[in-house]
Amino acid sequence: MSAITPDTAAPAASAADIKAARRARFEGVFDQIAEELLAYLKGENMPKDAVDWYKKMLYHNTPGGKLNRGLSVVDTVEILKGRELSEEEYTKAAILGWCVELLQAYFLVADDIMDQSVTRRGQPCWYRVPTVGNIAINDAFMLEAAIYHLLKKHFRSEKYYVDVMELFLETTFQTEMGQLIDLITAPEEVVDLNKFSLEKHHLIVVYKTAFYSFYLPVALAMHMTGIQDQSAYDLATKILIPLGEYFQVQDDYLDCYGLPEHIGKIGTDILDNKCSWNINTALANATPEQRAVLDANYGQKNSTSEAAVKEVFSQAPISIPERFEAYEKESYEKINGLIESVDESGTGLKKEVFRSFLGKVYKRSK
Amino acid sequence: MSAITPDTAAPAASAADIKAARRARFEGVFDQIAEELLAYLKGENMPKDAVDWYKKMLYHNTPGGKLNRGLSVVDTVEILKGRELSEEEYTKAAILGWCVELLQAYFLVADDIMDQSVTRRGQPCWYRVPTVGNIAINDAFMLEAAIYHLLKKHFRSEKYYVDVMELFLETTFQTEMGQLIDLITAPEEVVDLNKFSLEKHHLIVVYKTAFYSFYLPVALAMHMTGIQDQSAYDLATKILIPLGEYFQVQDDYLDCYGLPEHIGKIGTDILDNKCSWNINTALANATPEQRAVLDANYGQKNSTSEAAVKEVFSQAPISIPERFEAYEKESYEKINGLIESVDESGTGLKKEVFRSFLGKVYKRSK
Repeated sequence: MSAITPDTAAPAASAADIKAARRARFEGVFDQIAEELLAYLKGENMPKDAVDWYKKMLYHNTPGGKLNRGLSVVDTVEILKGRELSEEEYTKAAILGWCVELLQAYFLVADDIMDQSVTRRGQPCWYRVPTVGNIAINDAFMLEAAIYHLLKKHFRSEKYYVDVMELFLETTFQTEMGQLIDLITAPEEVVDLNKFSLEKHHLIVVYKTAFYSFYLPVALAMHMTGIQDQSAYDLATKILIPLGEYFQVQDDYLDCYGLPEHIGKIGTDILDNKCSWNINTALANATPEQRAVLDANYGQKNSTSEAAVKEVFSQAPISIPERFEAYEKESYEKINGLIESVDESGTGLKKEVFRSFLGKVYKRSK
Repeated sequence: MSAITPDTAAPAASAADIKAARRARFEGVFDQIAEELLAYLKGENMPKDAVDWYKKMLYHNTPGGKLNRGLSVVDTVEILKGRELSEEEYTKAAILGWCVELLQAYFLVADDIMDQSVTRRGQPCWYRVPTVGNIAINDAFMLEAAIYHLLKKHFRSEKYYVDVMELFLETTFQTEMGQLIDLITAPEEVVDLNKFSLEKHHLIVVYKTAFYSFYLPVALAMHMTGIQDQSAYDLATKILIPLGEYFQVQDDYLDCYGLPEHIGKIGTDILDNKCSWNINTALANATPEQRAVLDANYGQKNSTSEAAVKEVFSQAPISIPERFEAYEKESYEKINGLIESVDESGTGLKKEVFRSFLGKVYKRSK
C-alpha cells in the first residue's frame, strides 16, 4: 500500500503483495499442524522439555525456506479444480504441501550433518545449534514421522490415502538413493574426477531432487483431485522429471555464474568437489591440457585453484556459458513440446499445471 | 551330530540344534529379501558401486544380532495358527520379522553415531567402517525405506496392508520419542541427576524399547492371522508393554550385576551417564550422603568413580540387588496375572503367545 494515496480507493494489490498473502495463508496452516503434533506428544505423556524441544526443532527446520514445493501442491490443486478452493479444500491441500516441506526438512537436517554445512536459510544449521549436535539425527527422523501422523489424521478416510502414503514412502527411497550416489561419487575429501560423468549427474539430479521437488507435489495434487489413471501419473513423470533436471542444471550453473546478490549466496561447488553439471560438461569436452588443470584444482579448498577451474570452464572448447545457453534452449523446447502434447480430455490433467512450473523456472537468475 | 555313533539312528535333535536350524531357516529369508532390494536398485539404474554399497550395508547391519524380535513374529504366527506354517505362510511371517529387524537396524546405526559407540555385535559400528562415516545417516534412512518397499511388494493385496504400514510408522514415531527423551535427559557430557526419575525411566523404556521390541512383533503376527478386534490389540499392549519394561529393567540390572561372560560385554552404564533403572532406584532411596556420592561420581569417565557408585548401589537403604529381586517377583506375578486373565474365546488371542515371551525373559542372566 502506498502512503501517498490514503484517500483514494486501495490500489490493486501488487504481484508481490499477492505472493506475500499467499505465503502468509500457507504459513498459518503450519501453526495448526505444529499444534496438532505437539498435542499428540503431550497426549503420549512426553515430558515438557521433550515437547518444547520438538516445537523448537519443527519451527527451526520446516518453515523459513522458499516454500516452493509446498505452495506448488496448493497451486496445482487450484489449477486442476479450475476454481478457488473451499476453506476445507485449501487446508487439506496445504497440509499435503507441508508434508512435502517436512520431507525436505528431514533431508536437509541430515544433509547438513553429512556435508558439515554451517548455515542454512540464513541461520545456523540445526545440528550446530548449542546442545543439539548429533541429536539432530533423531530430530530428522521425527520430522519424517510427522508426515505419516498428519496423513493418518487428515486423510485416513480418503480413497487415495494408501496411494499418498506409498507416494511419500517411494519418493523418500528414491531421494535417498540419489543422495547415496552423490555421497559416494563426490566425497568432499577425496577428489577423483574419473568417478564423474554426465550420466552420474543425471541420475543424482533425477533421484536426489526431481522426484521429491517436482513430481511429488503434482502427484499429490492429482490424487487429491481424484485422478486415478496410471497413464496420467506416467505423463506427469515424463514432463516433471526433465523439468526438475533442467531446474537443477540451472542451479549448478548459477552456483558458478549467477550473481551472489541474486542467488543469495556465494557458490562453493568447485571448492566442495560437487558433482555438478558444470564440471561434468567440462570433463566431457576438455582437451587433455584442460583436463589436467581440472584434475589438479577441482575440489581443492583454495581460491587460486577455484579461479583456475573457473578459467578453464569458460575456455573453448569447454565454454560452459555457451553450452548452458544451448542446453537451456533445448530443454525449454523439449519440455514445451511435451506439455503441448498433453491430452486434456478424460485424464483430468491440464497443460496449465506444467506451464506454470516451466514459467517459474525458465531463464530464472535466482 | 556325534561322530561316535555313525552307525546308529540319528539321535534326537538337541534344543540347541533346533534353535540353530530355526535361525538358519529365518536367515535364508534374509538372502531373498536382500536380493529383492538389490534388484529394485538395479532396476532403477543405480550404478554398480551404489548397489554394492547398499548390499554391504544391509548385511553389515541387519543380520548378526540375536534376531529375537524377528523370530518372535514367526513364533507368534505359529502359536496363533496352532499348527506348522505352509512354506508361503512361513515366508510372509519371516518377511514381517525381517522388517522388524530392519527397523531395529535403522535405529541402531543412528544410535551408534549419536552415542559415539565403537563396536556393535562384535564388529565395528557401521559409521566407523572406513569410508562410511556420516554417510551412515543416509544408510540408516535406506534401511527404513527397505521396510516399506518389502511391505508393498509382499502385502499390498492383503486386507491388513494399511494396518501393518501404520503400525510400523506409529511404532517408529514412538521409538523416536523415547530416544529424544533419553538423549535430552541423559547426555553423556553433562551429568545432572536432577533430570532423572523413575517416571522418566519408565517413559524412556516404554517408548524407546517396549513398543518396537515386544508389542510390534506380536501385533504384526495378530494382523497376519486375521485378528481385527481392537480390544485384542489393547489387551496385547496391556501385557507386552509391562513385559518389555521388565525386560529392560533386567537389562539395566545386568549391565551392573551380570557376569561379563554371560551378557557378552562389560557394562558401561555408570560411566556413560545412562538413565538406567539402577540409578533411578538409587536416587529414589538414597540418604543425603549417598546422594552426594552419586552426584559426584555418576557419569564420570573413570573407574574410581564407577566403583564408588557401585558401592553405594549395594548399600542399604539403596540395596539394588534386593530391590531388583523384589521388582522381578512383583513384575512376574503381575504379568502372569494379566496373562491368566486373557479370554481366549472369540478374540483369536492365546495365552501361550505371552507365556512364551515371559518364559524367555523371566530370571534370565544374559
